Amino acid sequence: MKWREELSAEIERLRPDRVFVLTDSNVSPLFHWDGTVLVVPAGEESKSLDILAGVWEDLSSLGATRRSLFVNIGGGVVSDLGGFAAATFKRGIRFVNVPTTLLAMSDAAIGGKTGIDFGGLKNEVGAFRMPERVIVDASWLDTLPQSQMREGLAEVVKSALLGSEDVYGELLNLPETLTAHNVGHAAEWSARFKEDVVAHDPHEKGLRRILNLGHTAGHAFESLAARVGKPIGHGTAVAHGLLVALRLSERLTGLTPGMADEYKQKILNRFYPALPPECRDVPKLIGIMAHDKKNPAVGEISFVLLRAVGEPVEAVRVDEKILLSDGCEGN
Amino acid sequence: MKWREELSAEIERLRPDRVFVLTDSNVSPLFHWDGTVLVVPAGEESKSLDILAGVWEDLSSLGATRRSLFVNIGGGVVSDLGGFAAATFKRGIRFVNVPTTLLAMSDAAIGGKTGIDFGGLKNEVGAFRMPERVIVDASWLDTLPQSQMREGLAEVVKSALLGSEDVYGELLNLPETLTAHNVGHAAEWSARFKEDVVAHDPHEKGLRRILNLGHTAGHAFESLAARVGKPIGHGTAVAHGLLVALRLSERLTGLTPGMADEYKQKILNRFYPALPPECRDVPKLIGIMAHDKKNPAVGEISFVLLRAVGEPVEAVRVDEKILLSDGCEGN
Repeated sequence: MKWREELSAEIERLRPDRVFVLTDSNVSPLFHWDGTVLVVPAGEESKSLDILAGVWEDLSSLGATRRSLFVNIGGGVVSDLGGFAAATFKRGIRFVNVPTTLLAMSDAAIGGKTGIDFGGLKNEVGAFRMPERVIVDASWLDTLPQSQMREGLAEVVKSALLGSEDVYGELLNLPETLTAHNVGHAAEWSARFKEDVVAHDPHEKGLRRILNLGHTAGHAFESLAARVGKPIGHGTAVAHGLLVALRLSERLTGLTPGMADEYKQKILNRFYPALPPECRDVPKLIGIMAHDKKNPAVGEISFVLLRAVGEPVEAVRVDEKILLSDGCEGN
Repeated sequence: MKWREELSAEIERLRPDRVFVLTDSNVSPLFHWDGTVLVVPAGEESKSLDILAGVWEDLSSLGATRRSLFVNIGGGVVSDLGGFAAATFKRGIRFVNVPTTLLAMSDAAIGGKTGIDFGGLKNEVGAFRMPERVIVDASWLDTLPQSQMREGLAEVVKSALLGSEDVYGELLNLPETLTAHNVGHAAEWSARFKEDVVAHDPHEKGLRRILNLGHTAGHAFESLAARVGKPIGHGTAVAHGLLVALRLSERLTGLTPGMADEYKQKILNRFYPALPPECRDVPKLIGIMAHDKKNPAVGEISFVLLRAVGEPVEAVRVDEKILLSDGCEGN
């Protein structure tokens, strides 16, 4: 497999004194590694202080030093947890991510955001710390159920909308069943695209904010669904958020009319379930968006929009009235 | 007090949405603060995961955001713990250190090394994260017992040897009783000196290593003393380590003969107790030094030495034979 060769080359280049692999209970049966492997339970629950302390303990008792290398093989939970463990063990040791899910390849494993959940809040504790390298090997994708592929697809679509008409074209023409073969190229492109954006803005002070496309409304959908006891996946939420952003872009920033509908027919409706929230929820959704911590000022709702595919416009302030009038056609 | 004015100015400049002060049970009675103050028990035991989790919990439940400011008022324990809490809360919020001990002013609070002890190891978990500012106000020093002043003095002497003949001259002429008045100037100079060194080398890849002057032998003294059940303070250990470095500098790097003796008479003998280790311990000390993780290669013992006061020479490899023959005159 490609990832093994690239990882060997990376180890050759970095010359660590020891290598420690972190993975989860879903991924560990999928590969063999001659060396130390730490396995955490699969699932978001592993992004906890207890599990983190266990990783620190293992590193410490197994003799990891400042010259050791940590390798996170898994989805976003593994790279978030393992990246944070590496960022803080002996004030920081080097790490490499080998993402195994579409979401991790296109988003979570890239960009140096690491962390754990704490006090019931996601990523409440963490650090910015860049991996030495992210090794993207699309062949992992054939180990995933379709539901997880679809959850990951939304971030790939987002990146394509931000950065490449060609890749977006590929995505509009995907067959029903997602495979390493048909989304692999877009996944690898998406990883490199995010790396480029982050390299220009590691601490999210400017350019990196474009990655928020689809997330303003997406987060609101996600929060509201959780509140009413019908939680939806992050990918589903973002996929619906992208439609809102495309509709607003047609209205406000000159995106060619019809693109939002094309997205809805060819991507949203084919890969994602409809949302529980209905028209009467629009004011509530607006309330949630008004409290998004990424807004430039409290109460001002700001969106990343598009002039065209590949031409994002950052931080467009959108009046609540427009959202109210647009909200129902949107979904 | 000067620190209050400077802190107000800093808050004015940084415009945080909230300010959280962290201090310990020794320091909290010494000042009043209109606002949220988190108090941890005084002592190294507070550099623990439990106490850290408590600080995260408090920040979270009190509504700290990414725009909040953390202010660490205390000695090295407070700035190490509080700096790490700030470095990791919501992936990093800004913090300011207000060191209240001589050791923290001259060393611990400066340079961005933060962390906690874990699994019985000092600073096993932590991060490099620069404070927005270190506010050095020597008037805190008059709140300290003489023993703690002396423990802190060693790092001030070290900085002076590395960077200023004038300040070193002041230190050679200190009266027996240390006060804010007589060491304040050297303490403030020492803080700025370390800031300059660190600014050139934040991650300890080059220049910053000069700050290790006196620490190669110092750490060995400290470890051996702890092992034989007669622990000594870090300052005492470094003060004795500085004598070893000065003697080696006379022999190997051209330091004017007599300077080591002058240091011994005017500083070491006046402010520090003799060490438990004796001549027969020299081979053991060498063994400990050979395992220092800061050596360029395993088994090679490397020292920072001086050509003159203010002219350090980094990473001089010293043969064990020289250490064996020199070891006993040294102490």
